[in-house]
Amino acid sequence: GPGLHFESADGNFTAEVDGRLQADSQYNITNDVLPPAPNDRPYELNSGANIRRARLGVEGTMFKKWDYKFEFDFSRGNGSVTSGITDAFIRYNFDSPLSVKVGSFKEPFSLEEATSNRFLTFIERNMAVNTFLDNPNVYKTGIGVNYAVPRWQTGISFQTEPVGSWSSASTSVNPNGNNSRNNGSGDTSWEGVGRISGRPWMESETKFWHVGASAAYTRVNTQYEGDGDFANGGMSFASFPGANVDRTNVLNTGNLSFGNKNDLNSRRVESYTRWGAETALVYGPFSAQGEYLQTHVNGHGYSGESLFGFYGYLSYFLTGESRVYHVKNGAWNRIKPFQNFQLTGPGWGAWEIAAGYDYMNMNDGAIRGGKANLIKFGLNWYPHSNIRVMTNYIHVLDINTAGVADRRSAGFNNANLDMWLTRFQVDF
Amino acid sequence: GPGLHFESADGNFTAEVDGRLQADSQYNITNDVLPPAPNDRPYELNSGANIRRARLGVEGTMFKKWDYKFEFDFSRGNGSVTSGITDAFIRYNFDSPLSVKVGSFKEPFSLEEATSNRFLTFIERNMAVNTFLDNPNVYKTGIGVNYAVPRWQTGISFQTEPVGSWSSASTSVNPNGNNSRNNGSGDTSWEGVGRISGRPWMESETKFWHVGASAAYTRVNTQYEGDGDFANGGMSFASFPGANVDRTNVLNTGNLSFGNKNDLNSRRVESYTRWGAETALVYGPFSAQGEYLQTHVNGHGYSGESLFGFYGYLSYFLTGESRVYHVKNGAWNRIKPFQNFQLTGPGWGAWEIAAGYDYMNMNDGAIRGGKANLIKFGLNWYPHSNIRVMTNYIHVLDINTAGVADRRSAGFNNANLDMWLTRFQVDF
Amino acid sequence: GPGLHFESADGNFTAEVDGRLQADSQYNITNDVLPPAPNDRPYELNSGANIRRARLGVEGTMFKKWDYKFEFDFSRGNGSVTSGITDAFIRYNFDSPLSVKVGSFKEPFSLEEATSNRFLTFIERNMAVNTFLDNPNVYKTGIGVNYAVPRWQTGISFQTEPVGSWSSASTSVNPNGNNSRNNGSGDTSWEGVGRISGRPWMESETKFWHVGASAAYTRVNTQYEGDGDFANGGMSFASFPGANVDRTNVLNTGNLSFGNKNDLNSRRVESYTRWGAETALVYGPFSAQGEYLQTHVNGHGYSGESLFGFYGYLSYFLTGESRVYHVKNGAWNRIKPFQNFQLTGPGWGAWEIAAGYDYMNMNDGAIRGGKANLIKFGLNWYPHSNIRVMTNYIHVLDINTAGVADRRSAGFNNANLDMWLTRFQVDF
Repeated sequence: GPGLHFESADGNFTAEVDGRLQADSQYNITNDVLPPAPNDRPYELNSGANIRRARLGVEGTMFKKWDYKFEFDFSRGNGSVTSGITDAFIRYNFDSPLSVKVGSFKEPFSLEEATSNRFLTFIERNMAVNTFLDNPNVYKTGIGVNYAVPRWQTGISFQTEPVGSWSSASTSVNPNGNNSRNNGSGDTSWEGVGRISGRPWMESETKFWHVGASAAYTRVNTQYEGDGDFANGGMSFASFPGANVDRTNVLNTGNLSFGNKNDLNSRRVESYTRWGAETALVYGPFSAQGEYLQTHVNGHGYSGESLFGFYGYLSYFLTGESRVYHVKNGAWNRIKPFQNFQLTGPGWGAWEIAAGYDYMNMNDGAIRGGKANLIKFGLNWYPHSNIRVMTNYIHVLDINTAGVADRRSAGFNNANLDMWLTRFQVDF
Repeated sequence: GPGLHFESADGNFTAEVDGRLQADSQYNITNDVLPPAPNDRPYELNSGANIRRARLGVEGTMFKKWDYKFEFDFSRGNGSVTSGITDAFIRYNFDSPLSVKVGSFKEPFSLEEATSNRFLTFIERNMAVNTFLDNPNVYKTGIGVNYAVPRWQTGISFQTEPVGSWSSASTSVNPNGNNSRNNGSGDTSWEGVGRISGRPWMESETKFWHVGASAAYTRVNTQYEGDGDFANGGMSFASFPGANVDRTNVLNTGNLSFGNKNDLNSRRVESYTRWGAETALVYGPFSAQGEYLQTHVNGHGYSGESLFGFYGYLSYFLTGESRVYHVKNGAWNRIKPFQNFQLTGPGWGAWEIAAGYDYMNMNDGAIRGGKANLIKFGLNWYPHSNIRVMTNYIHVLDINTAGVADRRSAGFNNANLDMWLTRFQVDF
Repeated sequence: GPGLHFESADGNFTAEVDGRLQADSQYNITNDVLPPAPNDRPYELNSGANIRRARLGVEGTMFKKWDYKFEFDFSRGNGSVTSGITDAFIRYNFDSPLSVKVGSFKEPFSLEEATSNRFLTFIERNMAVNTFLDNPNVYKTGIGVNYAVPRWQTGISFQTEPVGSWSSASTSVNPNGNNSRNNGSGDTSWEGVGRISGRPWMESETKFWHVGASAAYTRVNTQYEGDGDFANGGMSFASFPGANVDRTNVLNTGNLSFGNKNDLNSRRVESYTRWGAETALVYGPFSAQGEYLQTHVNGHGYSGESLFGFYGYLSYFLTGESRVYHVKNGAWNRIKPFQNFQLTGPGWGAWEIAAGYDYMNMNDGAIRGGKANLIKFGLNWYPHSNIRVMTNYIHVLDINTAGVADRRSAGFNNANLDMWLTRFQVDF
């Protein structure tokens, strides 16, 4: 970041220290859920404050052509959800817009996922993006290729497990097992992922239309003991309604692999296929964005069940700025206020308002994960380019978790939830 | 620290990398405790060596008025006690001595706690400070306001859980649950904390008298299952007699919440109130310091039971230096020797001797946590301003853990303990 | 590293940020093991990719004579094997080649262990070095003395537990207990370690002969409950056949302490003694290296049982470079290619080929840990001095785990294993 950029005398080595800090709070205004079963804790969401993300990283260039990046997320390191590595890769840049990287990096999938969490419009990503990308851990090890020019970009990758899932044998959906960084679960054997995006209409960097599409195929491991009993592995999909502190999985398929493999009613997820379509419009201080994501589940006991979600939102800068495009990622970038905030002076920083709708459905065929939809409103203040103060109000329109196996998830059936969220963010 | 301070060309961004490393050892000269129960491990303390703290942090300023700080303690990351975030906040400095911060930071309470562990006179803090502040984790998330001028300062804060206790629902006094950074326990709902200190007599920066007072009110969560059984949460207070490697809780109240909530003899801690009074005198190379801390416990089955402790000690610099005051914190700061140590030269660095008395009592009304007192002696060598070599001798005068529920704690009843501690510290 | 070296204006403080990143993969070409027992998972090794090591550190000098170093390995932080501190020490350099350090540092033992894992010829160290050094965690806290001149060096140390094994009482061979950084096990009370090495023939820095010897004596804790039942502690030795992603312990003695101490057939390891002899020859682009390591186990039920292993390998630089000697460590150092790689230019970087043999035997007297031997081939590409691409082919000649108590280890008896490993490494 600024102030932390270094270069050797001959220019062959550069290094930069990056950091981000997000101090969040969640207050549950309405928290009306079912009473707990005799041996269960109360199901309701908890209000509180936390450090949502605290990341430090170092990145740089060696002999002009070779990049490296390493970043670690220190937050939640004290609790049941572990901290972990995010980016950790080596990249070679050809003389063209082409580059290839090896290590741990994000799956190239979805506009909202490709956007750094520092530059999101709302505090949390929408439900479908969390369910299909963040929760199963979007950072996986493998090899990826990128090609980017100002009007379009594409990324494809071949990836395996997240860092720390040291072998498929020991990965587990059990939270006491090899849980991934976001406490998500799933035992990836390998996957192929790809995304392409572009700007078919582009009058200027403040007036353009963005479209894109993503696809991914993932093989899943499920492991059985010598007598056929389910041992570990498999995959579960789960979702929370935009909360940032108590991120309880209100929607939850449970593990899609279960039972002795010789039992007639056992199930085994063998692969899943994800699809995504995205679009966004920037027209001066106004912008609109929407995505549709869908996942098909295949395997023993499954017949291509389809889980899907979509979202759409509008944003407007009261102070006249425009959303900024990140050409290399085909995603959003840092906002610079026209005038920085001054306590005794004319500057107010940048002010943005936003409103959105978010829908998620995880009920299909043999799968009962529940469905939900909600509306949300946001107000963002950018006193200068490296600080953000965000506040969101979330109103859940409907949660339907009838028939979901997980008792806590089922306890949210027809729940009334309203949340007020805040975030104070610094990044450099 | 020095050598690691950076600034952007326009001065709008500064950054500094901070670190500390404390390599400690503990040798138990006398270790005379009760034999273990049939299914218990031996109760005695263990001799050994360890890295007590290994912290790295980055802090800086953005656009003059905005500060950030992030620090992580990497030590104990391999063992049963976890590493964790300490400071992680964003601060805005008004044009006056006033500042406001949001994130994770220390509760403003007690002179010894406000002093960085790099600048303590003895290797470990005194028992009451550990019991009421360090062990329950003094770093909590929230919002704080500070006001500081050379003669007095005050800090007040509204704080919730430590980082990583991701929701009150999952915080637990069970060490397998959401233990806090120091393996302390307690499920804070929210708390208000404040401290004020000043120097009523001040001839110079080497001759002055410091006084201060602190107060805090903390709400505690206790959670019950659907049938009324205790689930988790609550609060326990525990203490160890100055040890730095084997920090077994020799005094231990156990969890103050227990039992089915419908049982007559169940108990539930609902809040506790802490009070503190502090004073210190610096008169050239001589200094004296003392504090008294008290906590009242309220809730179902409690009637304001009072736990308390106090300590006092004297310190003298053989080489003539004085203790250094940290104006902004109302606490102690870094010692600079008059002459740095040189192997072949006149310099000896700074040498300090100290002696103190420490008392703790956690028996009152319904609470049986034991009581203890001890004397300690210290010799500190500062070869230069950033290295410290410390050695302490601790003689326990009395431990009374009769009636304490925790069997290991009870095994220390009337124990004879003498310890020899060392620390090698570098910080920058 | 280069580009990340800092110095204060008066030269009294220097600091340097160091990092390394190793992105590894393992593909098991032949994976022919016994079927699992009814309640066991499959025994075979798993293919996959992972971040083998991701380390960041800071080191520097204060007032010319005082060094500090702190390094943390972030990898595997998500999984069952924890991340942890490696080096964390303060060092004083006398005016001579003599230095003394306090904190956490590597045991001075073995040429291959003294060599940084950044500079190894093959991707993983050989079996005896992993068994006797890496797996029980070679980084322990204590005090060490080093003396080094260009022709010879020696290091001796007195060390206790690894960081995080916060007291001998809570260290455990149980993986849920205080496991060490490499998930190895063992409860060190204290140990004395020493190594001496030199170059009896030395024509130049590219033509010399290296010899060395190491010795260590380690006291082991085993702890019993009040009724004599084994509680925790002890020591186990384990080994894997060169794998870098699925590092299952194919050879495994199990805990050498077990049973109620009053039972006739209980056993208790009380100490072990390690010996090592090493040699290496560099003759221009050609080099050869070999080591023999042996450990004797003593205690109740043991009579000096001997576990041993040895390895030897040859390496040749097709592009003419020579292996580089690290005078201070008596070990290997960074390779600088004669010409850096250029996509459109004459440079190819450096290319190295290597072949080796590795033997390990952990069967003797009362101990049944199995034995194995294997051959391996390597091809290394160094596009420039700070990037490495490595690939290894490993063919296991024989595994004999008949009679080993651990069922998974026994499942590898007579297994046929062939592995193809890769590593992409950057360090600075």
